[in-house]
Amino acid sequence: MLPIRSYASDRMPTAAVLSIGDELVLGQITERNGGWLSAELLKLGLMVNEHRTVADDRLAICSALREMASRGALVVVTGGLGPTDDDLSREALADALGVELEEDGRALQNLLDVYRRRGRPMPVMNRKQALRPSGTRCIDNPHGTAPGIAARLGQSEVFLLPGPPNEMRPMFHDVVAPAVLGITARAGGLQIATASVHSCGLPESAAAQLIRPLMERGTNPLVGTTASGAVVTARIRAMGVAATDGALERAVQEVERAWAPYAFGRDGLTLPAALGEVLRRENAMLAVAESCTGGGVGAFVTSVPGSSCWFAGGFITYSNELKQELCGVSPALLAKHGAVSEEVARALAEGAADKCKCRFGLSVTGVAGPEGGSAEKPVGLVWVGLCDRGTGEAPVVTKARSFQLLGDRDTVRERIARVSLQWVRLAALGNGDVPLLWERPTQNVRA
Amino acid sequence: MLPIRSYASDRMPTAAVLSIGDELVLGQITERNGGWLSAELLKLGLMVNEHRTVADDRLAICSALREMASRGALVVVTGGLGPTDDDLSREALADALGVELEEDGRALQNLLDVYRRRGRPMPVMNRKQALRPSGTRCIDNPHGTAPGIAARLGQSEVFLLPGPPNEMRPMFHDVVAPAVLGITARAGGLQIATASVHSCGLPESAAAQLIRPLMERGTNPLVGTTASGAVVTARIRAMGVAATDGALERAVQEVERAWAPYAFGRDGLTLPAALGEVLRRENAMLAVAESCTGGGVGAFVTSVPGSSCWFAGGFITYSNELKQELCGVSPALLAKHGAVSEEVARALAEGAADKCKCRFGLSVTGVAGPEGGSAEKPVGLVWVGLCDRGTGEAPVVTKARSFQLLGDRDTVRERIARVSLQWVRLAALGNGDVPLLWERPTQNVRA
Repeated sequence: MLPIRSYASDRMPTAAVLSIGDELVLGQITERNGGWLSAELLKLGLMVNEHRTVADDRLAICSALREMASRGALVVVTGGLGPTDDDLSREALADALGVELEEDGRALQNLLDVYRRRGRPMPVMNRKQALRPSGTRCIDNPHGTAPGIAARLGQSEVFLLPGPPNEMRPMFHDVVAPAVLGITARAGGLQIATASVHSCGLPESAAAQLIRPLMERGTNPLVGTTASGAVVTARIRAMGVAATDGALERAVQEVERAWAPYAFGRDGLTLPAALGEVLRRENAMLAVAESCTGGGVGAFVTSVPGSSCWFAGGFITYSNELKQELCGVSPALLAKHGAVSEEVARALAEGAADKCKCRFGLSVTGVAGPEGGSAEKPVGLVWVGLCDRGTGEAPVVTKARSFQLLGDRDTVRERIARVSLQWVRLAALGNGDVPLLWERPTQNVRA
Repeated sequence: MLPIRSYASDRMPTAAVLSIGDELVLGQITERNGGWLSAELLKLGLMVNEHRTVADDRLAICSALREMASRGALVVVTGGLGPTDDDLSREALADALGVELEEDGRALQNLLDVYRRRGRPMPVMNRKQALRPSGTRCIDNPHGTAPGIAARLGQSEVFLLPGPPNEMRPMFHDVVAPAVLGITARAGGLQIATASVHSCGLPESAAAQLIRPLMERGTNPLVGTTASGAVVTARIRAMGVAATDGALERAVQEVERAWAPYAFGRDGLTLPAALGEVLRRENAMLAVAESCTGGGVGAFVTSVPGSSCWFAGGFITYSNELKQELCGVSPALLAKHGAVSEEVARALAEGAADKCKCRFGLSVTGVAGPEGGSAEKPVGLVWVGLCDRGTGEAPVVTKARSFQLLGDRDTVRERIARVSLQWVRLAALGNGDVPLLWERPTQNVRA
């Protein structure tokens, strides 16, 4: 086993990511390239050990380039390649290299071609985009005007790429990825491999307890958990030999066994996509009746391409009138128990399944907040109903369970959407009665 | 006017934000504290000029602290204050200061109190959380076990805060915010003030053209635009005297005038909240019938607390059967024109308004992709229908317009949700016929 503290500094080449822009550093827009680049570099076997974001400031960019290049094998820079006065990445790289800018003939020709295709002359200011520091080379940009720049700064390979993701990402794959493979090859091959396993419905502490031996520092592959709302993910990192000898896959399977039946998928598989796989296999259709989520469950479900094979649609019964008129909930039931109740959740679920002619009807009705809570029905209380009209001769079974969620309005709505879809998935797998995260400690699942 | 290049380096104090964590730097979870802290610091009149994220590595944290403290008046650090071996922020700060760690009696007592309230003994490893570098002070954490640490490193004030936002944010407001006011006061008062104006339905280039004089470098207040999906935002920054003499408000109003009727709100106001203000004033209710968005419009609308006053609910008519059975779209119409058509969009909008008894019925039906496109109806084509049942004697008016959106499935769905809600807002304001971003260049708005 590799002791984990040693891998980064002793032996493995590392990378760094620098993002340029006033809007980013002022928090006006969210920096997203750093996370994407880190994940892509990790897939290629290279660990990022620093992200940095600096303003449109020539000196700051130059200092960052020098510091970052002195620490690792690769620096990827995004932004600051536009045509305006505050696009300064070219100039800063020239400063860091101690050279002058010069015009790249091919890059200029590409620029002129872009504008010829657009049917208008190139603005004078754009000519600046054909400049690169002497001794460096330009990188073609198939989706925009700004070429990238590839350079060597000390022991580090430096790539300047444009900021817009649709321009940056193809250029990364075309030019940076091959360079990364060169870096890892010189260091002796794949240095690191990763995988992840997702679960929903387990508290993070319980999930971690179930895979404790895999999480001890010094273990390789090493497993860590991260919780994002209702989803707990095991992130598995195999270093050195373990990255290529099958140890990663064994660790993945171990986590999946430990987290059954809550583990729903690996890597990029989302919860609704996992639900879709189960429902397709069972040849079952789902319909929804949403109150406090207002359509969020349906939107989440239909984020999956092809979801029309297993999702019919349903009702957004935000007002009580629509609960009655669309889903057939009786006024007496609403008056007696209130909209956020076991009885109404059951009636909504049955209404959704019946009126949409689906095997499963799922309902969500709760107090999302920040207003509307009471002592009896506090903010965060949500009742979820699930009607299973069964197959063949099976009887209709409708259940409801209640959850008490913490967090603001968006958090409550997002979390219950996830937990309720996991309930449908588990029910379709015949495991609908296992406990779920945030359930209230009452006699819950009643038939 | 202040020349913009001079403000940061010459006169104004600046801040930096450092985030600690392997998961962050590896891109496994998204770093969010940096953007939040930048925005909060900007509100307090202090500009952030660097974000940095480093791994759980004592040397890397120490180097980052020293570099960042040498450049600004404030460094805010989040993460690395937990009880485990890879929580190293305390140690790294001690290294940067060149002092030893010592136990803080009050912090230890607070820790013991937390565990007494939880009814279990404090784990031995947590005792580490009461350590702080000699000569620094601990900051109470009302929502967790990790106290923060306040220190002075060179000319800079340094604050270590825990990573979880629900713990970090209150501590920022309690302790860091007052320190920031001290820093700006010593520099001569408020240094910078910002505001924003949001629009929807204008292309970014057209939006920028309309406010061009305000965007010229060297102008103060200075306006920049950012586009996020269908929303173009003007970010207005007033520096020095302009931050306090009313110039900011005048610039805000100038942008609002230039962007009428597309400007829908300022600062934190979202598009659905702005729609809600208009519908409440008009005493009008909205219902939806969603196909390709699958509930996303309803979810977006109900993200606004109190939206039940102006939003009733509606239908997720994902399947063609439900378009017929729930919304009363005739099978002949569907067979003749297909689900993604002007005629079906109109029928869905009318069905939503009628069946939900609302003044406005909004429908969305399109090809979200990645599959399902054709030459005639490509991926990204969306028809939006809007039925206005009017007030009093006014006749029912139903219109439909089509859009051609670029981007992946999520992007198409998110963008059309925004544009369609802006259409409802404009219609409720009597401006429903102005052109909208991404509309197809056909004879569109037909009564």
